[in-house]
Amino acid sequence: MIEEKGILFVLSGPSGVGKGTVRKALFEKDTGLKYSISMTTRPIRTGEREGTDYFYRSKEEFEKMILNNNLLEYAEYVGNYYGTPRDYVEETLEAGKDVFLEIEVQGALQVKKNFPEGVFIFLFPPSLEELKNRIVSRGTETEDLVRNRLMAAREEIEMMDAYDYVVVNDKIETAVQKVQSIVRSEHCKRERVAVQYKKILEDDLA
Amino acid sequence: MIEEKGILFVLSGPSGVGKGTVRKALFEKDTGLKYSISMTTRPIRTGEREGTDYFYRSKEEFEKMILNNNLLEYAEYVGNYYGTPRDYVEETLEAGKDVFLEIEVQGALQVKKNFPEGVFIFLFPPSLEELKNRIVSRGTETEDLVRNRLMAAREEIEMMDAYDYVVVNDKIETAVQKVQSIVRSEHCKRERVAVQYKKILEDDLA
Repeated sequence: MIEEKGILFVLSGPSGVGKGTVRKALFEKDTGLKYSISMTTRPIRTGEREGTDYFYRSKEEFEKMILNNNLLEYAEYVGNYYGTPRDYVEETLEAGKDVFLEIEVQGALQVKKNFPEGVFIFLFPPSLEELKNRIVSRGTETEDLVRNRLMAAREEIEMMDAYDYVVVNDKIETAVQKVQSIVRSEHCKRERVAVQYKKILEDDLA
Repeated sequence: MIEEKGILFVLSGPSGVGKGTVRKALFEKDTGLKYSISMTTRPIRTGEREGTDYFYRSKEEFEKMILNNNLLEYAEYVGNYYGTPRDYVEETLEAGKDVFLEIEVQGALQVKKNFPEGVFIFLFPPSLEELKNRIVSRGTETEDLVRNRLMAAREEIEMMDAYDYVVVNDKIETAVQKVQSIVRSEHCKRERVAVQYKKILEDDLA
């Protein structure tokens, strides 16, 4: 029986770009994606469940995982650790399910380092699109203002270089459709599919 | 004004796989794709129009285009030439429109050589899928039959290696959706988008 491995999709982008909104709208659709569950050292709260909301671990356990490189990324926030356990992601992928991780840029770059075979999607703020239009049409703004905005945009663009895809979040529905298209098309990539067919054939012809 | 360049999509695959059916179903949707118009030396027929059905040229003109490498691919069929004019494709792409070309495998390999920046989609016969299932489940067929089928499948798989994507044509609707997803996601590829943004910014910051 052939088991097509799942793919790790990482949605990221600058703060305020609307990552959470796009992720929520995406998960309302029937995508077959499994949302990545984080690990944390913060105490479990009423109504939360281990393995559903988070994996809850002690600080000692978490630090051991950091040392053993068992996290695809982690960060400290208000005295607690938060991170993405490698085992959970890999087991889900092995079971043939895609994993979807929504995360800020620093975390995504850590994941990229630890799991380069992931597919990295950069959600781009619509303001650059607007900015683009502003620049290209006859400008009514001062040259300095345009220049400052462009400098900020340039910093964002440098981060973009680590990503595979860029989706402009000008309209949530359009952005969600593009992310869905990326998920579907990645499963049609020849490198992924050809290896599987070849493996079966070679096993049998051997 | 920024002009996003179009992308050349080439749909190909073995004879009988259903390329034409998938292409027709795809063009019934609102994809914004422009179907590539071929050039031919065969006489124009009643009801046909120059530049709509074909570009009609004399044999001398066609052979001159072959010599000048003005065709992305060509073939001779029942005494007439048929080919894809490079100028028409490039002008359409420059105008920001995607071009869609449906063609047999030999033609696609010629296009790949002459226009490697195209996106090449291999339509895979559902029989290999079936074959796959047959191989992996407990076989009721003779070993020889399975072996022969696998050899034929292997030849097709070798051709697959020149392609970017593989879409199994098990269900037309699903295949069309996958091709549409490939078209959408290719427009989100960082290499394409980043260059455009950077160009605008650099032009302005210069």
